[in-house]
Amino acid sequence: MKNSAMVMQIQDPASQRLTWYKPPLTVLVIKKVSDASVLAPFVYLVDWLLQEKNMVVWVESAVLEDVQLNENVRFKAIRDKLVTFKDGRDDLTDRIDFIVCLGGDGTLLYASLLFQQSVPPVMAFHLGSLGFLTPFRFDNFEEQLTSVLEGHAALTLRSRLRCVMHRRSDRKHEAKTLEADLDGEARPAANSILVLNEVVIDRGPSPYLSNIDLFLDGKYITSVQGDGLIVSTPTGSTAYAAAAGASMIHPSVPAIMVTPICPHSLSFRPIVVPAGVELKISVSPESRNTSWVSFDGRNRQELFHGDSLRVTTSIYPVPCICAQDQISDWFASLADGLHWNVRKRQKCLDELSDLTASGSEDTLDEIENMKLYDV
Amino acid sequence: MKNSAMVMQIQDPASQRLTWYKPPLTVLVIKKVSDASVLAPFVYLVDWLLQEKNMVVWVESAVLEDVQLNENVRFKAIRDKLVTFKDGRDDLTDRIDFIVCLGGDGTLLYASLLFQQSVPPVMAFHLGSLGFLTPFRFDNFEEQLTSVLEGHAALTLRSRLRCVMHRRSDRKHEAKTLEADLDGEARPAANSILVLNEVVIDRGPSPYLSNIDLFLDGKYITSVQGDGLIVSTPTGSTAYAAAAGASMIHPSVPAIMVTPICPHSLSFRPIVVPAGVELKISVSPESRNTSWVSFDGRNRQELFHGDSLRVTTSIYPVPCICAQDQISDWFASLADGLHWNVRKRQKCLDELSDLTASGSEDTLDEIENMKLYDV
Amino acid sequence: MKNSAMVMQIQDPASQRLTWYKPPLTVLVIKKVSDASVLAPFVYLVDWLLQEKNMVVWVESAVLEDVQLNENVRFKAIRDKLVTFKDGRDDLTDRIDFIVCLGGDGTLLYASLLFQQSVPPVMAFHLGSLGFLTPFRFDNFEEQLTSVLEGHAALTLRSRLRCVMHRRSDRKHEAKTLEADLDGEARPAANSILVLNEVVIDRGPSPYLSNIDLFLDGKYITSVQGDGLIVSTPTGSTAYAAAAGASMIHPSVPAIMVTPICPHSLSFRPIVVPAGVELKISVSPESRNTSWVSFDGRNRQELFHGDSLRVTTSIYPVPCICAQDQISDWFASLADGLHWNVRKRQKCLDELSDLTASGSEDTLDEIENMKLYDV
Amino acid sequence: MKNSAMVMQIQDPASQRLTWYKPPLTVLVIKKVSDASVLAPFVYLVDWLLQEKNMVVWVESAVLEDVQLNENVRFKAIRDKLVTFKDGRDDLTDRIDFIVCLGGDGTLLYASLLFQQSVPPVMAFHLGSLGFLTPFRFDNFEEQLTSVLEGHAALTLRSRLRCVMHRRSDRKHEAKTLEADLDGEARPAANSILVLNEVVIDRGPSPYLSNIDLFLDGKYITSVQGDGLIVSTPTGSTAYAAAAGASMIHPSVPAIMVTPICPHSLSFRPIVVPAGVELKISVSPESRNTSWVSFDGRNRQELFHGDSLRVTTSIYPVPCICAQDQISDWFASLADGLHWNVRKRQKCLDELSDLTASGSEDTLDEIENMKLYDV
Repeated sequence: MKNSAMVMQIQDPASQRLTWYKPPLTVLVIKKVSDASVLAPFVYLVDWLLQEKNMVVWVESAVLEDVQLNENVRFKAIRDKLVTFKDGRDDLTDRIDFIVCLGGDGTLLYASLLFQQSVPPVMAFHLGSLGFLTPFRFDNFEEQLTSVLEGHAALTLRSRLRCVMHRRSDRKHEAKTLEADLDGEARPAANSILVLNEVVIDRGPSPYLSNIDLFLDGKYITSVQGDGLIVSTPTGSTAYAAAAGASMIHPSVPAIMVTPICPHSLSFRPIVVPAGVELKISVSPESRNTSWVSFDGRNRQELFHGDSLRVTTSIYPVPCICAQDQISDWFASLADGLHWNVRKRQKCLDELSDLTASGSEDTLDEIENMKLYDV
Repeated sequence: MKNSAMVMQIQDPASQRLTWYKPPLTVLVIKKVSDASVLAPFVYLVDWLLQEKNMVVWVESAVLEDVQLNENVRFKAIRDKLVTFKDGRDDLTDRIDFIVCLGGDGTLLYASLLFQQSVPPVMAFHLGSLGFLTPFRFDNFEEQLTSVLEGHAALTLRSRLRCVMHRRSDRKHEAKTLEADLDGEARPAANSILVLNEVVIDRGPSPYLSNIDLFLDGKYITSVQGDGLIVSTPTGSTAYAAAAGASMIHPSVPAIMVTPICPHSLSFRPIVVPAGVELKISVSPESRNTSWVSFDGRNRQELFHGDSLRVTTSIYPVPCICAQDQISDWFASLADGLHWNVRKRQKCLDELSDLTASGSEDTLDEIENMKLYDV
Repeated sequence: MKNSAMVMQIQDPASQRLTWYKPPLTVLVIKKVSDASVLAPFVYLVDWLLQEKNMVVWVESAVLEDVQLNENVRFKAIRDKLVTFKDGRDDLTDRIDFIVCLGGDGTLLYASLLFQQSVPPVMAFHLGSLGFLTPFRFDNFEEQLTSVLEGHAALTLRSRLRCVMHRRSDRKHEAKTLEADLDGEARPAANSILVLNEVVIDRGPSPYLSNIDLFLDGKYITSVQGDGLIVSTPTGSTAYAAAAGASMIHPSVPAIMVTPICPHSLSFRPIVVPAGVELKISVSPESRNTSWVSFDGRNRQELFHGDSLRVTTSIYPVPCICAQDQISDWFASLADGLHWNVRKRQKCLDELSDLTASGSEDTLDEIENMKLYDV
Repeated sequence: MKNSAMVMQIQDPASQRLTWYKPPLTVLVIKKVSDASVLAPFVYLVDWLLQEKNMVVWVESAVLEDVQLNENVRFKAIRDKLVTFKDGRDDLTDRIDFIVCLGGDGTLLYASLLFQQSVPPVMAFHLGSLGFLTPFRFDNFEEQLTSVLEGHAALTLRSRLRCVMHRRSDRKHEAKTLEADLDGEARPAANSILVLNEVVIDRGPSPYLSNIDLFLDGKYITSVQGDGLIVSTPTGSTAYAAAAGASMIHPSVPAIMVTPICPHSLSFRPIVVPAGVELKISVSPESRNTSWVSFDGRNRQELFHGDSLRVTTSIYPVPCICAQDQISDWFASLADGLHWNVRKRQKCLDELSDLTASGSEDTLDEIENMKLYDV
């Protein structure tokens, strides 16, 4: 009998596909706001979901207050059929089967924000140009939606990072917190947040460099001296981390990316660690100033001396429905969103060679071997 | 019942540990060659394995021919107890329980070369400075080896890439090859090779740029115009790929790294794709010249128009025994091998602030607000 | 007669040397503050300049108030011989022949701040480790200072950037300003500042990306979308610009470096333009938010829509005295301050080759040509 | 009297303009070869120069042999009026007043190759897309050429590097060489070559890393361990050096760029040194293998142990006529040739903000402050 560790299981990304265990009945529609061009498609879509698919359609309550939307005749006809919720007040857990996003990458970040535990499958349409997270074109939405609702779709499970802040001042209340935890292990910690792109630790408005200590699985790894540090998901590797110099990671790779922002050290390259590690970030004890933390560009807050931020991969990914498949969708978004390897053929060297080869065989040799002169 | 895809399994790297299903009896010792300083430790080690651990010790037959070694008295005493094999002639599959490497990263690449299918656990000692692949110090080798032989060790499974060359001219022989395959599915393909670091496709001695087409899972992705392309394992991300600008990936991340070498396009960043994809690389049809391929720096050969190289993750990793654990070993090798984020504290801004704050509170304010002059 | 443009004048950096047209009599000593370790060297130095060289020694008035310094017996003896000035109040123009800096790069930035027109030659000592701007060791300061005062020294003329803010609201006052200018062309503009390292335009505390327009010699060049933009001198290319990814430029090269900070575009490389151009920077008209500007890390202020910042190379460099010469000093500072190309020899490939070459000539060939196997 | 070094001369690039000291009479026309699309424009141009401008037109003798060209009726009519020369045999020095290039950057590299001392002003037309060195469009060539011949044009003086090989074996012949030099100081050295883009030192076909020593003004600076080293002009900073990671330098900056190719050291950034220094490059004494040198992609030759390559800025630049001006032409070529900072506006963060701000003022606050949950 041989050591079983010797053979690896390698998952084929093409094997991840959408499966409906029961037909989806409720759909949440998230639209981009403050953008008049999204209103007509939104009304079309909602109307179609109600009439053709007989689905229960949820929207954020604020949508019903939109002045421009309320002037739309077709919208008026369906307004009362919509179910609303108020963000930050109503719990959507287990009430939504399916999410449709309309407009831009921000709609997906918002969906991630709304569902801090399990997330229903998300189908995201772009209206103008392709986004990193919005692969579907809207023009033949009926056909594409029908196909997805019938279960014909590849899926990319986008991992998220679970971030928990530990405040130094919390320690005295530890006993109390433990007590509170007794009445239900399943209750989420009050100070955690899930991010789809990244958590950023930076120097904020301070003119001094950040001094941030990084720990992995409890061990001190290094200190970051510079503008800050980005801890991102593979999804986030094409966002702020790309601007800070990171390589781009396909969202299906189970990993966490750590990218310094303008590090003082020339050799501080970005690193990619396994999804299963726990990162701890804190202000270096000898640092003159504090740092600032933000989550997917939001909830900015100060990280004081003695505080720490712990980051792990959440077990709750965002299941994103692919327009084509995991690989094609990703490279399409790289080309469109980042102009990745868009280029023009280099002809310079070829031309020079052509030039000198113009005469005859021996001309070429002459040039290759000739002595060139200069005083 | 909810969609099971909504929850991810996240593997903790600390969970991978060495397990002996039966006590290891045979050990292969690989030593660095052409380096006299390795001879004494080698003799000590082999002697100890024979005498103290009663193991069967294998060495490459060429070792017995080493002139300097044969002058060593202690070696003469044990010479006849060694089992030898001839590289390229004798099959080691299933005959070795355990490998000990002595000397440098090259010894591990060589071990990988010897075992093109399942690889026994490898324990690698460095003699001078720490290598990327040789985490153990030799000074107290007895203690460390005993501990490992008792099964106390963390393990890093370093994935390898399986590279298969498809020659255009092979096509006419396809029928024949299929026939040959009939007498045994288990027989390895005659034209595949496993690499631990990377396969490199470059322009070789040609003065023209390479034009290489890259396909993933059968789909055309992009063309590389530049000096070439590196397809590497996470282990290889700290080797040539790092020199070409890649981020560094921990060896436990199931991924393949694709890094262009001096690409003509400024936006051609390295990318990281899931371990489960198949890459195909070929010379672009309109390319003026061919390319050259090498495997872990060896077996250099020309890639002609119409040929293709296929790369997938092998199911046979190299199981490397950790000196400490997966995380600590990796960061130690980054610091030592690449001076990763070795730096000096920046004091410039602080000092300026100190300077101007030297007098009194109002001096500071004056400077902050003062008008500065220049003609 | 041929076109005279056909031959270029190329300046040898070694030709720039210190020349005293008259013996230096007055010396300004700038010391690092809030650092007790600098006090003893400072007193030694000042005492020596007074006693041995009979120079008039200037210090900032705040220095006389330093509590620790006033406890120093030797300092008490010379305290009354020092000439003082108050930063921001007293004009030092034409009153100082020579500057000695003691402590760190910040002391030189401060010297640059004090002299917004012509700057006397600066000799800068580091106390701990070598700085980018402080090449001299203190231990044999008497010898080195004597040599410099005798005129034996190479000089690096570090160019500075003249930055002028044009506020949209200033336009209504233009007539008035012109009138004021009539009574003396030589009078410095009230809103200009010279920087030795860089001027930084960033998004400040805003969570949105900066949108900054860049003009050269009045022509629109590009827009920066990202964290910001650094306009630096060659001296500044080893400071913040290096952290943002710039190449390092020797301080004698007459150029201005433009480096984006975390640009959203992967192809936005840093650029180097001739010292003689004028840059204009303004907030893009369609930008949602404003930007913030800081000068050598100081004087942080908001750049509003309609405002513009104009940057040109000042005719007043900072003449820095070299410890050895322009070239040696610069590379010493790169190695020490940035660990530039500090590395460890790569032996991996060599070793592998050694390994396989261990047996005999034909062993090598066998491996080179052998078929490697994998299922 | 003050130290004159305190004020710098700063040259305005706009001040460099074309000046004809006598009207240009002879013109050399260089066309791209092996490209049929260039033939018609070439005949038009040459005919016009002969008929309308009464100039003496030179072409390379090989041009007259071109089969396709000789089938052109209009060409047959002017064929006998052309003056020809044979590259490598006939000396063009002082015989040409003006050069017109037609076709691609290679034509300019070829012009540089032909004139190893003083170069006449060059006007370069691109036929397809804009090149780095070919700013003029061909469609209204008559108008543009007339304007240039009348002296209305800005000029970019592109510096070149003078490269001299010193062979170890040459040393024994030193006495002889000195003697030979006596009969004429003005005679060019037999082993020098001028490059417009770059000289590259690389490992050639060797699988081992290059080990190259770099000296500046006779002082050892550093060793390069990697694929090689590029020493380039500012013109060359947008060619191979850009692919290797260099910042882009405007051709008017008097500087030499040194860029490592895939260096083993993470901290080995490209550097920019003053045009007046001398670089010496040699194979490191302990290096296992030799290196290879090529000049503007040509004349590839081996650099052996003990040999050295010396590089200085030549006093003979290539005077290139601008289509618009120095600044506009350069940025146009960056955008077109390298897609420099071609990008798409980032809307992600804005959208998220819009989304959450959709309801009312208090909705925004709620989200900013809300507790987010995760188990």
